[in-house]
Amino acid sequence: MGAEAKRAEEWADVTPDAARRLVTAAVQAFAERGYHATTTRDIAGRAGMSPAALYIHYKTKEELLYQISGVGHRLALDILRRAREGDGSPAERLAEAVRTFVRWHAEHHTTARVVQYELGALGEEHHDEIVGLRRDSDAAVRAIIEDGVATGDFDVPDVRGTTLAVLSLCIDVARWFSADGKRTPGEVGELYAGLVLRMVGYAGQE
Amino acid sequence: MGAEAKRAEEWADVTPDAARRLVTAAVQAFAERGYHATTTRDIAGRAGMSPAALYIHYKTKEELLYQISGVGHRLALDILRRAREGDGSPAERLAEAVRTFVRWHAEHHTTARVVQYELGALGEEHHDEIVGLRRDSDAAVRAIIEDGVATGDFDVPDVRGTTLAVLSLCIDVARWFSADGKRTPGEVGELYAGLVLRMVGYAGQE
Repeated sequence: MGAEAKRAEEWADVTPDAARRLVTAAVQAFAERGYHATTTRDIAGRAGMSPAALYIHYKTKEELLYQISGVGHRLALDILRRAREGDGSPAERLAEAVRTFVRWHAEHHTTARVVQYELGALGEEHHDEIVGLRRDSDAAVRAIIEDGVATGDFDVPDVRGTTLAVLSLCIDVARWFSADGKRTPGEVGELYAGLVLRMVGYAGQE
Repeated sequence: MGAEAKRAEEWADVTPDAARRLVTAAVQAFAERGYHATTTRDIAGRAGMSPAALYIHYKTKEELLYQISGVGHRLALDILRRAREGDGSPAERLAEAVRTFVRWHAEHHTTARVVQYELGALGEEHHDEIVGLRRDSDAAVRAIIEDGVATGDFDVPDVRGTTLAVLSLCIDVARWFSADGKRTPGEVGELYAGLVLRMVGYAGQE
């Protein structure tokens, strides 16, 4: 799938078409120049629309960021919850969580950077809502690790700290991943799944 | 040490005093608003100077970013080289590299964010120089891991990938670390040193 098709798929749930074009344009602009250096006029221009047409869909630049952040965070939470509720052993579910979470951050690294680095620009109410989604993501991974500790498959002295480190390792893929690099998103996901199983002291490994 | 004293210490090598004030002001402005949204006028204002006085020390905004990035990257490289050249076993040296590298990213998270996230804003020549320093940092950590593989202390199927993951895990501390959080920089360093020894399959652990 090309970059263009992937972008369209990523925002498929945003309707109508004009709103989707604005969101796509905003992600690109925020990623290139940062949120504060981007104007609604820049975004409208990139989407081939007038500032007045933008205003029909989004009253402020912050509303655009909020939509982008919400879609990104809900996707992340879905990925991690699906892994938590899977059928396999704790090790299989943790590996699957890491594999899919990493793949998302690699494939959608432009969006992921905006989602991860511009949290501070959200208005207070929106910020609180997004922080809630992040807590839920953290809880999903923590639950898998706790399952593994309970079955004796994992050996984790500090569950909260290890959960934080696992998520942090995956999220930082968005910073360094390049489509021109040596590893595909799937390969990074496999490598990281193996490293994370080591981090939780998975006994059955190798 | 208070935040103010820590900031002064961080840039102690930048002289004269006016240049140091400008660098400190630029770090704060870039961290809050992003590089592209910051003007040299903003920076001069924060430093209590006129734009003309700024111009004596830095001809462009990019020169300020280059100095900040250079100081930050050289410090990181020093930390990792010192660990590589230390006396201990590979496990002790790797733990020390992680401990000190993490502590730096936690204590100086504002600077570290600018250093890590604004690479793309450097001019081509400056960018190439900084990328060279990053390669040297990567090589220092890789050398410790290779030492451990050679002595049989570590079991690492993918040395390059694991080196990348170790550095990435440490660097992302700058994103999430908060001075108001539950863990001190030293505690995060200890936690991460243990997790990294697991990532390299250190046999002697626990």
